[in-house]
Amino acid sequence: MNSHPLKLIIEACDRAISTRDFDALMAYYADDAALVVKPGMVARGKADIRRAFIAISDYFGDRLKVNQGRMEVIEGADNALVIMETHLCFPDDAGGETQTTRRATYVFRREADGTWRCTVDNSYGTTLLDDESR
Amino acid sequence: MNSHPLKLIIEACDRAISTRDFDALMAYYADDAALVVKPGMVARGKADIRRAFIAISDYFGDRLKVNQGRMEVIEGADNALVIMETHLCFPDDAGGETQTTRRATYVFRREADGTWRCTVDNSYGTTLLDDESR
Repeated sequence: MNSHPLKLIIEACDRAISTRDFDALMAYYADDAALVVKPGMVARGKADIRRAFIAISDYFGDRLKVNQGRMEVIEGADNALVIMETHLCFPDDAGGETQTTRRATYVFRREADGTWRCTVDNSYGTTLLDDESR
Repeated sequence: MNSHPLKLIIEACDRAISTRDFDALMAYYADDAALVVKPGMVARGKADIRRAFIAISDYFGDRLKVNQGRMEVIEGADNALVIMETHLCFPDDAGGETQTTRRATYVFRREADGTWRCTVDNSYGTTLLDDESR
């Protein structure tokens, strides 16, 4: 599935985040999309999602490295469910680096003009069910 | 999230499968929805999805028991990403019972009349990435 157009779109989003080009980034989101910022916290709508990305970027600066791994896309009824391995590398409090791999789940919608837009961005995948406190 | 209308819809789908009411079941799917039958095999469109459910039901008969566990719903832009724990219990070849838990991922779309319809049904969740042979 490596040649799926959504792979290029997700890579463009990663580039936009790392260059802090939030205008370019938000062009890939539907107006009233949802972003899981962390389990239990969801940003809704482009303005909130943009603020969340800016806050995340400010926190990590250029110290957060993101690499995409394996990807599966299941298209149905002008939606696409993307399941994607995401490798994250960021500095930890001890002065070292923490590496972690997530399996993200994204929902995209194909608009009437053929453009794909993200409607639900959940980089936590099915681990949302791990949080026993909720 | 237990009161979300999609919980009732998914429960109604489970009942429809166990009573082999495939007309009722298919009413919850978009016309050109996709169903992951197993990793690497996707049924597309109502006719194919119906055939797949009939084949699964014929294979297991009434010996497959399904219980839903915890559920998270993230709504964005008239889509909903549902992440759901599904407990399966079925007879194994040794005459005993196999119990397994999956974390399913479903995508629903809210139609103009407010009706939710499933566009992507992937009961394998992020484990689709486990299949190293692909």
